[in-house]
Order: sequence, then structure tokens, then C-alpha cells
Amino acid sequence: ETSIKTKDKASYKNGVLVKDRKHCTYESRVTTTDHPLASTLFELMSTKKTNLCVAADVTTSQELLALADKVGAHICLLKTHVDILQDFSQDTIDKLKALAEKHNFLLFEDRKFGDIGNTVAQQYGGGSHNIVEWAHLVTAHGLPGDGIIKGLMSAANGRTRGCVLVAQMSSEGTLTSQEYVQGCTKMAEKHTYFVVGMVSQSNVSSDPRFILFTPGVQLKKAGDTLGQQYVTPKAAVLERGADVIIVGRGITQAEDPAAAALIYKEEGYAAYLERIEQKLENPSAVGS
Amino acid sequence: ETSIKTKDKASYKNGVLVKDRKHCTYESRVTTTDHPLASTLFELMSTKKTNLCVAADVTTSQELLALADKVGAHICLLKTHVDILQDFSQDTIDKLKALAEKHNFLLFEDRKFGDIGNTVAQQYGGGSHNIVEWAHLVTAHGLPGDGIIKGLMSAANGRTRGCVLVAQMSSEGTLTSQEYVQGCTKMAEKHTYFVVGMVSQSNVSSDPRFILFTPGVQLKKAGDTLGQQYVTPKAAVLERGADVIIVGRGITQAEDPAAAALIYKEEGYAAYLERIEQKLENPSAVGS
Repeated sequence: ETSIKTKDKASYKNGVLVKDRKHCTYESRVTTTDHPLASTLFELMSTKKTNLCVAADVTTSQELLALADKVGAHICLLKTHVDILQDFSQDTIDKLKALAEKHNFLLFEDRKFGDIGNTVAQQYGGGSHNIVEWAHLVTAHGLPGDGIIKGLMSAANGRTRGCVLVAQMSSEGTLTSQEYVQGCTKMAEKHTYFVVGMVSQSNVSSDPRFILFTPGVQLKKAGDTLGQQYVTPKAAVLERGADVIIVGRGITQAEDPAAAALIYKEEGYAAYLERIEQKLENPSAVGS
Repeated sequence: ETSIKTKDKASYKNGVLVKDRKHCTYESRVTTTDHPLASTLFELMSTKKTNLCVAADVTTSQELLALADKVGAHICLLKTHVDILQDFSQDTIDKLKALAEKHNFLLFEDRKFGDIGNTVAQQYGGGSHNIVEWAHLVTAHGLPGDGIIKGLMSAANGRTRGCVLVAQMSSEGTLTSQEYVQGCTKMAEKHTYFVVGMVSQSNVSSDPRFILFTPGVQLKKAGDTLGQQYVTPKAAVLERGADVIIVGRGITQAEDPAAAALIYKEEGYAAYLERIEQKLENPSAVGS
């Protein structure tokens, strides 16, 4: 079996030095990962030239589907909170799946599972939302220990599904200590067959198999009144090591969400290209 | 303004020594707390002589309502996961509220909110489940920082509602470190107008205003295959300092849930009475 040990900026695979995640192209990572969904995601990011995930925080199916259709061409992932939809139905899901197919993006339900394995298995694979049936990726907290991953796996039951562990949060006063982050990273390393990456605010892993997702991205750096703190696309990718930038209100509350998505897509991808180029010119410039 | 400083086993209120939570009767705590829902809960625990919360982890409305009616007379709280109900509807909620009224217990949705304030506000006060409308209490992780409490508060919008912070978990490998627990406790102390207590596995607070809820309680001490670890009612109350014991599979999977609930009710309350008596005979016997 293959194992990767992360040592500072370098990684070793079977004793051979492999590239730091931040220095790898998305294309090269299609084959580095052994998770089929991570492969699919890297492929479409590379083809569509986008690392943009839109957080579709809207409360009606009509708004959700309209937004997905408007921004679909510019995104790699659509992040949902289905439990804020007033009129959730199987019809909404069917239409969402069709839009994901039409525009070639994946569905990412940001459920932030946070219970013991037996409970999350029922929440993921049951209830009225039946998340496992339609969401390619879901978020989960590492807090309960790795029984949460085993629980999600048991509900996935062989489907091509993946989980993203929330290693860090963007909100003020978060309790995600360094020790906590390490606990999540270890959990991810133990379960690479199901965990595709981490939600993070800094460069928590140099392992190219893991995809880092950074939320709270907005061009206008500010916050809200409930503790949210923003970061720009460029800072997310270059300073915090994000592979995927998650943009919510910067796009959903824009007058023209499609135009805004295009701007974020170009900003995010340009930052990624700069990160790769920096590596070629001056490896030491890309610190963690 | 009144403030309580917790110092080992003793508490001081405006400089005056107040009793350790573990040495206080539920009845006396009706007036110690300034949270109306905590008052109501202490009152009904005292009247019904029960500290039992049943975790209703069933997947159909019919099972949920049948269980609530069977165990209702023996419990202070019914803990739900509405998102595992295949057939959730407003009708289910209406009937559940009627049963809560009939048997005099409170509704406790174990949602384990775990997102930033702006998101949890929408999850709590919206979506198809509209939790704030019917659940007296909800659980939340302290992980995102206290914006999560502010977010829930904004959705509660003046309703008599309360939140229970998950300070510790019962599952194997949980990342709730001592530092994490302290972070949650501080958050609770800062927001006593909304936080009624903590989900815990040990005596995390001696402040009589806070209600400690201990899940994973079962008479047969064992575990499941997804990381859950059990504790007996007596150990939960006497050793871990639980005010409320949460029993799931020990009752829901019993042949006669009503009979099982009665046994757990009696075991839990006897342990509580023993805790109070221990205090009178030998204060030092009730360690943390």
C-alpha cells in the first residue's frame, strides 16, 4: 500500500519526493489522487479553467435553479444548504442534477455533519433530503472522531461520493486550534478513500491528494454582523493555499451574478496560475 | 448586573458563595437560573421526578409519535433528529407538540448546528423543517465561535428558545480537547440569556445555571460499530455530573419502550437523589 508522509513543503510517496500540493497543476493532480471524484474535479477545473465554487445560499428552488444556470459555466462546484430551501422537493433535485450535467460542475452539500457515526449515516442517507443520492461531496466536522467518516461511508454504500473535512472556519472566535487542525488532517490521511480534502483558511496540507477549499472569499474584504470575515480570491489562493475558492454573497447578491462569477473565476484562476509560475521562477516565494 | 465566577467546586454570585451545581436540587435551580426555559425544565423535572431525555432516533412520523406517546409520562425532554424522518410534515410537528403538551415534556432538536452565524440563522429559522417554530431547545457546536449563538438568537427573534452547546462528545477519537471544552464553557457564560447548558461527558461546569446533558447512556455498557461508547445512568449522574441523561437505543430498541423508559427514569432519578444525599452526608464524596 502507498502512504504519503507530509514533511514541511515536500511530500514523500514510497520514499520518493513528490511535489508540494501548491506547486502542482490541477491537471497533474488528476492522476496523483486515487479518489475518483477528486480526479473528476481536477479534470473539470483544468478543462473549464476555474477553481470557483459558488455558495448558493438562497431560500427558494426557483432562485437556486436560476443561480445554478447563470453561474454554471464558470464554476467547478455549486455549494448548497438544502435545509434552507423553503420548498425543497425531488423535482428541485432532478433539475439541479440536470444543470450540473449541462454545465459540467459537481454538487457540494455543505451540511457540516457533526454527529456520531450512527446518526450521520441516517442524516446523510435518509430523511426528506436524502443527500447521498444527489450530492457528490459533503462537508463534515472532524470533531466527533473518525466514526463520522465511517458513518458517512456506510451510507454512501459504494456510491462514488466524497467528504470534505472542515479543518478551519472563517468566523471570528472559532475554536479550531492548531491541535484541532492536526487532528482533522490525520483523520483525512487515514481515510483518503473517502476524504477528498479540507475546508481551510491556511495551508493545512502539502499533500497533493488533498483539495483545500477556502470559504469566506469576497473581492471587497470586510465582514458581516454575525462574525463572518472575508478574504480576497488572490489572498485565498496565494497566501492561504486554497485550491478552490468559495464565494457566496459576493456573487449571489451581485446585480449580475453571472458577470460576477466570471470575474471571480478569472481572479481565482489567475492567482492559481501565478502560484504555479512563482514556483518555476522562485520556489521559496511560495511560503506556507 | 449579576455575574457568577466558577472556582473549583464553589461558585460566587456577587461575592457570595453559592452552591456547586451538583449539590443543588432541581427545584432550587428553578430560581437560580435566569433563563425561562431552564426554569420550566427544572420545574417539570422536579414535578415528574425525571431527568430522562429519550433520543427518538426513528425514521418515520408514525414511529416518532408512537414512541413519544409511550415514553412521554417518564421524560423531561424528547430529543429528535427531524432530518432523519422520511415523511416529515407540519402535521407531524403539530401532533408532536400536542403530545409534548399532553405529557408535559419539552422538544429538543439535536441539530448540532455547526456553521457561521448567517448560515445557522437560515437553517434554524427557515427551510422545510423550520426548527425554531417548534423546538424549545437545539444543540449547537461552539466550534465556529460565538457568532453561531448570535445567529441562532437572531432567528429565535424573541421567542422563548434555548441552545445547548456540545462541549464534549461520547464518540471514540473525538477532538474535543480540554481547551475546546473551556472555549465552549466561556461561550456559554457569555451568553446565559440563550445557552441553557452543555452536552458533556464530564463535570465541565459547577455553575448551577447550566444544565449538563450526557448522551450515550445505556444500562448495558458497550458500544456500536461506528465509534459510539456507552455509560450507565448511575455513572452519568454520579461520576460525570449529568443533570439530564440521554438514552437512545436502550429505550427505542427495547421490546417495551415505555417499560424501559420507566426503568431509566427511576435509575437516573435515584442517582440524582444519591448525589444530593451524598452532599449532605459527606460533601467531599462528590468529586468532579
